Amino acid sequence: MTEKIIIALDVMGGDHGVDVVLPAAARTLARRSDIGLLLVGDQAIIERSLKELGLDGHAGIEIQHASQRVEMDELASHALRFKKDSSMRVAINMVKEGRAQACVSAGNTGALMATARYVLKTLPGIDRPAICTSLPSMKGHTWMLDLGANIDSTAEQLFQFALMGSVLASALDHVEAPRVGLLNVGEEEMKGNETVKEAAGLLSSGALNYIGFVEGTDVYCGDVDVVVCDGFVGNISLKTSEGVAKMIAHFIKKEFTRNIFTRIAALFALPVLKAFRRQIDPRRYNGASLLGLRGSVIKSHGGADVLAFANAIDVAAEVVEQNVPERIKSRLQVILSERQAG
Amino acid sequence: MTEKIIIALDVMGGDHGVDVVLPAAARTLARRSDIGLLLVGDQAIIERSLKELGLDGHAGIEIQHASQRVEMDELASHALRFKKDSSMRVAINMVKEGRAQACVSAGNTGALMATARYVLKTLPGIDRPAICTSLPSMKGHTWMLDLGANIDSTAEQLFQFALMGSVLASALDHVEAPRVGLLNVGEEEMKGNETVKEAAGLLSSGALNYIGFVEGTDVYCGDVDVVVCDGFVGNISLKTSEGVAKMIAHFIKKEFTRNIFTRIAALFALPVLKAFRRQIDPRRYNGASLLGLRGSVIKSHGGADVLAFANAIDVAAEVVEQNVPERIKSRLQVILSERQAG
Repeated sequence: MTEKIIIALDVMGGDHGVDVVLPAAARTLARRSDIGLLLVGDQAIIERSLKELGLDGHAGIEIQHASQRVEMDELASHALRFKKDSSMRVAINMVKEGRAQACVSAGNTGALMATARYVLKTLPGIDRPAICTSLPSMKGHTWMLDLGANIDSTAEQLFQFALMGSVLASALDHVEAPRVGLLNVGEEEMKGNETVKEAAGLLSSGALNYIGFVEGTDVYCGDVDVVVCDGFVGNISLKTSEGVAKMIAHFIKKEFTRNIFTRIAALFALPVLKAFRRQIDPRRYNGASLLGLRGSVIKSHGGADVLAFANAIDVAAEVVEQNVPERIKSRLQVILSERQAG
Repeated sequence: MTEKIIIALDVMGGDHGVDVVLPAAARTLARRSDIGLLLVGDQAIIERSLKELGLDGHAGIEIQHASQRVEMDELASHALRFKKDSSMRVAINMVKEGRAQACVSAGNTGALMATARYVLKTLPGIDRPAICTSLPSMKGHTWMLDLGANIDSTAEQLFQFALMGSVLASALDHVEAPRVGLLNVGEEEMKGNETVKEAAGLLSSGALNYIGFVEGTDVYCGDVDVVVCDGFVGNISLKTSEGVAKMIAHFIKKEFTRNIFTRIAALFALPVLKAFRRQIDPRRYNGASLLGLRGSVIKSHGGADVLAFANAIDVAAEVVEQNVPERIKSRLQVILSERQAG
């Protein structure tokens, strides 16, 4: 029998805490016998909720008490200093101590990134971790990073992001050499800011399957596997995309409820529109990887529901199965030694 | 009788040149008697096309010959040096010389910006012009700038963009004090890069109706009138939005053509979906203003069709009617003198 993958869950994190994390845990355990869950948070609250869910005494569950909670708007520095027994921090400690192979948190991104970096440390050769997620595209999905961990990035850091994203895409999509593009304002060589131009130079060295500059439209077209940018641009792109999708959903709904005729049309159209929505359902894409750490940490959307949080747990399991941090580390060693030799 | 607004059109610019610009001109003249058009480009080609369109000898049309054309992928510096008789350059000259009150070009953005800046010069107090357009929102539309004219912007430049966008929104929407937001990765004061933080300080002085940081999602929600960012972020946001909208259209189409049942559903749904598409039709939003110049220059999307280009001509007419450059100039004088006094 193969051993279970143990994943620590920050039970108190996110907008909904225990009300989402535990039902998501139940969902995971019902579907997968290869995953064990280490629930981190207030023991009394967790035990009560487990009882309500009929999960008390479940063989796939362990509880690790943590007395504090990081608030969603808490400064990262404050959480680091004063929340040493938070469910977030203890969940990350579980990874550090080897009691879990990954952890998942829907808590505040800044605090999660700072704590993960402080507790786990970055891999040798990585300056800063990056947040990477997959997004739906016309032909499947596209990986994008960084999505907000780093506001200003140097060319060397963009190169590191490209390498980490490439390793993640390769591991999870089982692709040999994912196509890596650098997000820019135009495809012509002349365009873009200095950092992006310099990063393009580093990426042209041949270590990765670098396909050149890509534009905002390309994120969703499916002709690039990994889109690299700094966290400021990445976060704004991602949120702008969310905004457009919400507006489109708003207008579609409005049109179909305009009058009796459009309401009848809606009866026919809704099943089809629902099938379409399933394809780009953001919940199916929930679970961003914090890459570049000596351990696996997955960030769930703060407002994630049960299905979305369960998806983030699946992402964590996949990252563990595919041994992503180890792969990044060894890929980095090869590239760094080639550089020194060159 | 009021005098006509004269608008110079770069007939040879854009992906389709004369084939789109002249039918758009015809469309404008058929709808509006208050606009006169100065067609700039190859005289023989223009005359032939006008004849085909039955417009030869139209009282609302004048032709200004220009022997060259700026290519869509031509470097701005090359166009500036070697295309002094291009339709783009001559159209801008018409504004400079007062023969037209505005010009519209679907040509290469970089060349248009560089040429307009060189020929017309910036207004006193403006470092660099910015590109501003309106985008659909859930409650109407949102103005956004800069969209690609400036890759790196200082805090002072972001402040200038905010001022120019505010004046444009105020003039065209007839709103006293448009709500101005600064695009950032989060609404909390602590987030964002140094430039954005510094710009927030300048904007808090009270000269504008500054509402604070806004996120990518807010561009389309309708609770902010003017969204300010640097050109790199703005261009990527805009193109990412286009990408999402295209992907959604692609999936909707795919679902409705999946089988016989979905095709029947489509018969009912299509009229409703078309009504919805009209609301966010990018052609209705075509026509971006180059703000901060001593004259009005409107940039049309390079791939614009007749309806879209005609819309850009309408934007030009509105900018002239509302005297936008003069308004920006006087608003700037007030703010600059207040600063000196303070």
